[in-house]
Amino acid sequence: MKEGIILTLGIGVIGLGLMGAVHARNCYGRIPGARLIAVSDANTESLEAFTSEFHLVKGYLDYRELIEDPDVDAIIIAASSSVHAEIIRGIVPLKKAILCEKPLTNSMEESIELHHLISRASIPFQMGLMRRFDPSYIQAKALIEKGSIGTPYSFAAISRDKDAYPPSYISKTSGFFKDTGVHDFDLARWLMGAEVATIHAQGSAFISEHIKEFGDVDFAQANFTFTSGAFGSIQLTRNAIYGYEIRTEILGTNGALQIGWTHRTGTVLLVRDQVIRDTVEDYRLRFEQAYVNEMVEFVRSVKASQAISPNSYDGVAADLIADAATKSLQRGTLETVDNGVLESSG
Amino acid sequence: MKEGIILTLGIGVIGLGLMGAVHARNCYGRIPGARLIAVSDANTESLEAFTSEFHLVKGYLDYRELIEDPDVDAIIIAASSSVHAEIIRGIVPLKKAILCEKPLTNSMEESIELHHLISRASIPFQMGLMRRFDPSYIQAKALIEKGSIGTPYSFAAISRDKDAYPPSYISKTSGFFKDTGVHDFDLARWLMGAEVATIHAQGSAFISEHIKEFGDVDFAQANFTFTSGAFGSIQLTRNAIYGYEIRTEILGTNGALQIGWTHRTGTVLLVRDQVIRDTVEDYRLRFEQAYVNEMVEFVRSVKASQAISPNSYDGVAADLIADAATKSLQRGTLETVDNGVLESSG
Amino acid sequence: MKEGIILTLGIGVIGLGLMGAVHARNCYGRIPGARLIAVSDANTESLEAFTSEFHLVKGYLDYRELIEDPDVDAIIIAASSSVHAEIIRGIVPLKKAILCEKPLTNSMEESIELHHLISRASIPFQMGLMRRFDPSYIQAKALIEKGSIGTPYSFAAISRDKDAYPPSYISKTSGFFKDTGVHDFDLARWLMGAEVATIHAQGSAFISEHIKEFGDVDFAQANFTFTSGAFGSIQLTRNAIYGYEIRTEILGTNGALQIGWTHRTGTVLLVRDQVIRDTVEDYRLRFEQAYVNEMVEFVRSVKASQAISPNSYDGVAADLIADAATKSLQRGTLETVDNGVLESSG
Amino acid sequence: MKEGIILTLGIGVIGLGLMGAVHARNCYGRIPGARLIAVSDANTESLEAFTSEFHLVKGYLDYRELIEDPDVDAIIIAASSSVHAEIIRGIVPLKKAILCEKPLTNSMEESIELHHLISRASIPFQMGLMRRFDPSYIQAKALIEKGSIGTPYSFAAISRDKDAYPPSYISKTSGFFKDTGVHDFDLARWLMGAEVATIHAQGSAFISEHIKEFGDVDFAQANFTFTSGAFGSIQLTRNAIYGYEIRTEILGTNGALQIGWTHRTGTVLLVRDQVIRDTVEDYRLRFEQAYVNEMVEFVRSVKASQAISPNSYDGVAADLIADAATKSLQRGTLETVDNGVLESSG
Repeated sequence: MKEGIILTLGIGVIGLGLMGAVHARNCYGRIPGARLIAVSDANTESLEAFTSEFHLVKGYLDYRELIEDPDVDAIIIAASSSVHAEIIRGIVPLKKAILCEKPLTNSMEESIELHHLISRASIPFQMGLMRRFDPSYIQAKALIEKGSIGTPYSFAAISRDKDAYPPSYISKTSGFFKDTGVHDFDLARWLMGAEVATIHAQGSAFISEHIKEFGDVDFAQANFTFTSGAFGSIQLTRNAIYGYEIRTEILGTNGALQIGWTHRTGTVLLVRDQVIRDTVEDYRLRFEQAYVNEMVEFVRSVKASQAISPNSYDGVAADLIADAATKSLQRGTLETVDNGVLESSG
Repeated sequence: MKEGIILTLGIGVIGLGLMGAVHARNCYGRIPGARLIAVSDANTESLEAFTSEFHLVKGYLDYRELIEDPDVDAIIIAASSSVHAEIIRGIVPLKKAILCEKPLTNSMEESIELHHLISRASIPFQMGLMRRFDPSYIQAKALIEKGSIGTPYSFAAISRDKDAYPPSYISKTSGFFKDTGVHDFDLARWLMGAEVATIHAQGSAFISEHIKEFGDVDFAQANFTFTSGAFGSIQLTRNAIYGYEIRTEILGTNGALQIGWTHRTGTVLLVRDQVIRDTVEDYRLRFEQAYVNEMVEFVRSVKASQAISPNSYDGVAADLIADAATKSLQRGTLETVDNGVLESSG
Repeated sequence: MKEGIILTLGIGVIGLGLMGAVHARNCYGRIPGARLIAVSDANTESLEAFTSEFHLVKGYLDYRELIEDPDVDAIIIAASSSVHAEIIRGIVPLKKAILCEKPLTNSMEESIELHHLISRASIPFQMGLMRRFDPSYIQAKALIEKGSIGTPYSFAAISRDKDAYPPSYISKTSGFFKDTGVHDFDLARWLMGAEVATIHAQGSAFISEHIKEFGDVDFAQANFTFTSGAFGSIQLTRNAIYGYEIRTEILGTNGALQIGWTHRTGTVLLVRDQVIRDTVEDYRLRFEQAYVNEMVEFVRSVKASQAISPNSYDGVAADLIADAATKSLQRGTLETVDNGVLESSG
Repeated sequence: MKEGIILTLGIGVIGLGLMGAVHARNCYGRIPGARLIAVSDANTESLEAFTSEFHLVKGYLDYRELIEDPDVDAIIIAASSSVHAEIIRGIVPLKKAILCEKPLTNSMEESIELHHLISRASIPFQMGLMRRFDPSYIQAKALIEKGSIGTPYSFAAISRDKDAYPPSYISKTSGFFKDTGVHDFDLARWLMGAEVATIHAQGSAFISEHIKEFGDVDFAQANFTFTSGAFGSIQLTRNAIYGYEIRTEILGTNGALQIGWTHRTGTVLLVRDQVIRDTVEDYRLRFEQAYVNEMVEFVRSVKASQAISPNSYDGVAADLIADAATKSLQRGTLETVDNGVLESSG
């Protein structure tokens, strides 16, 4: 029986915020072939709360101890994005595997640089773009590849938060497109099998006063073109009020695909003249299975030494589109997206 | 009992094509307070087919005889749009009521001129923008006015034909936005209670070769702004393949509205691993009730001498947006929409 | 053109209550090849209201004048069920076609007798079981006949009124199964292609005090068996409160069919934590198209001298099941349904 | 950190079949405050496969060692139902907590006896009726208790397996009602807050020949009454073919509740004339969250020394209804359900 343990990938999770906690819990008991070895967080309370609940998991206040722990084979980076670069630079020489929450970094330039560093080092690296692992999106991708809708020529995405995040969160993001839209842009590239060429964005802050203060918007929309000649559109809302909803629609030459839903449960209340259903609260509920699946796939790929997707290229490519959208929103111009900087010569 | 007949609005229908036939049938027996007096069509066969089926309805080969028929109080113009101007100019001096299918004319200039002519003459004039009379859109409008979603700040419209119309039809239209988008632009103005300010459009012909030949597109999308500060988007498809579908979504400060559906019947077939539903074939099925309702409302308004909506202003205003979208599509520019030309000084 | 008129079936409608008015309006202008000649109602006001709105339709206070009117070829019986027998006996010698609202009569015995009278006289006779003409049920029947679900072995029906009818209505019915269930029993026989063999029913009055007074129930359910070995179930509610809903589900050896829907419009209101849709008010809205279709099919069959379905056999057969259900409900027994009395020797 | 471990409930799982594996995996990492200490299975391979994947979990070939393991505070019984009695009798003297998969035992008499044994011993005992912990059913129960539908008076349940289980499984069950219906009967008691009084059942084997051989059915339906005067119905299918589906509908004096769904993912494929969705494969997918929730609740109740629901009374009460339904199915009679045998004097 003991041999089995050797075959197990030792996981370390850096950061026990919302996403880090989700990953750490998943790694503890839901991921075949993996074992949660350690977590790190600069906050003593968060650290103790976690390690006291999850048996035999080591807790480090300093993430550097975690990445150097010899039992840790793979590291989940869920710390603040401001320290991603530093952490990654620390791991690369150790050749350990990484799953990094988006964005790679807050700076476009540094992200591109890190992508090249990671590529050259040939370490297993997965970007935390979890929508690709959602069962609905997995099925959509499979249907497209089977040719069920012919050649896709239009991609349309809708992403809605129920309520805007508080100022403390907003102040740390680089704008709505980079914070949220990046997930839709990743779906766009992945499902359409093409890169985004140009983008034209608009938006405003209608509801959240604090968002205006940070120069950001709570509603944004953009039309874009793909290098394949296809078209795309995206609509983002921070204050949908009714609930959290993610929807995507793809038109092809032989049909169409719709992905998404509005309801949390299958319970319907019918009262005089009204049929009432509930809604999804947030991304953790909507993508619960996706977070498990992305970790399963990460562990499987690392153990099998297989190519990983989405990787740092995918992460930075989606970010480049979000960056162009942000510029277009600010300038009112049609912006061009250039992936050339990501190629190996970069 | 005889007095009742005098209280009845006598209707004449010009043109027995697809839409003319729908209107003539509706007027024959489904519109309270109205009676179909006469129909006209230059095609003898169409005319005889109709009058032989519908008892006591007069048939005219020349529409001029119809508009001068003293029993005809109100005229439905469903002839080719190339003769709309001529017909309207013929009716105005007679001060008879008009319900005119869109577009008012194929020329933006002439449409504006006719709008001013109609306004000055103060004749009852209704534009055939039937979506406003669809039960689903009626309900949406009522909910917005009740404040159910707060202040609306985003409007998104999707219009899909199942298959592209044949070359004979396409050759007579002034482009996808003017042919189809105009219905969405009318909904945009009506539901949002604001005018469109600027528009940025894109599109291409992906499926229908013949559409390319006419310099038109079978897919188009546009983002636009309202004078109120709200945003809009539209996506048009001529070849949805699966069926005909019209959808609209509105976001407001307190909630959202979704309007539209995909299925013709309430029948669901469940076979191994699949749940299968049907689709709507075309606009006549989707908007059957709307065509009845628009006629009921036209007759009611004319008999009660009440203001009519949508009128020639609405018709031309929607057309102006479609015109700007068409220019944007062709030029790749952000276009401005100017309704000033429709004001009384025009 | 005049010849067309001769080819037109002249329709007379007896009774201008809710259903009679629906049929008369439909016959006036929505039924190809038919023309509404006359209506009759013992109430002068109802009669004048109708004839003053619908041009050139004759009004008779005495239905006997209507059935003898030489322009009337076919008669729609929508009068009180207490006079159905008398009216039918008056029409049979004239060999005119009949479409009769259910029930044939209030007495099982007299209905059987009339069925034999109608059969022997070979007059065109259609029973007003309109659900067979609803587009959703038409599609379900077609799918069963195509073999899409294999051999059907289970039929389940749900019929719900929004609110119970008032005492004035309830006092004239012969119980919930005979008043409402008969439509489900007709669907059962038609869709399953088999007769009902035995039935076990239960029910009670939960909401409507006045229904209890008439010895009737506002909720009833029954399980039944078919002669084919298949099973059936039915659930009836007079006070669904939320709206009117008719649903049917059929299981077959290769799949299943679900028929029915809850919503009137395609409009969805989304507010904090809730997705809200509307409901259907009543049978006239739900089956509007079915009423048109049943009349179209009646006129077509009569003019083509083709066999009619559902006919008096179908009407009485469904009534016999409802009768057995009523007995089971009252006695708590398993009742047998015997169609033998409907055979030609009867 | 060590103190935390003492506060953790040590779990042992007996049986690593389908359900046992689900519970063991959940207990390993998804249940706050619990830790999987040991699993037992008579099959060496199953045991090694599990313990080699899940780090530090002890494996016992003999369940007796597991129940006596001092680290094991609570035991999940997921072994064959034929050994439930023996296992429970072994645990009771040790006063350890039990979560037992249904049925308590295969014998009605022995189940009643065990219920009394468990009650007298006052050990924490939870019956594995997981539907009560499904988010949709939790919401339905909450809405009923809030009075959202007034007083419930009708309960209707549908349970469908995609394909019948193989002979090896069927041979060990006590009939369709006891194997599957028991879940619906538990929902009936729980949601309606009343006991079942009488039941009338029917059924047959339409598809699965092997089921006929075991004297069982693959389709069954029953109507029943509650002691409160309310009515119930149940429809069971072993071969729904399209997928696994569980549905419940409750009518109340102010509205209705519908619980259930058909689709696995939120992906919709739209091709010519068809809108296609997928289906749920089996109970493990449909009730994945319910299995987690029931364990969370079990652990919470045991640690807080709170009353547990559903307990052995609930398990046997549901079984008694299923037993009466089975008798009715076999005899064609209306059967009475008597819970008296479960009272403390029993």
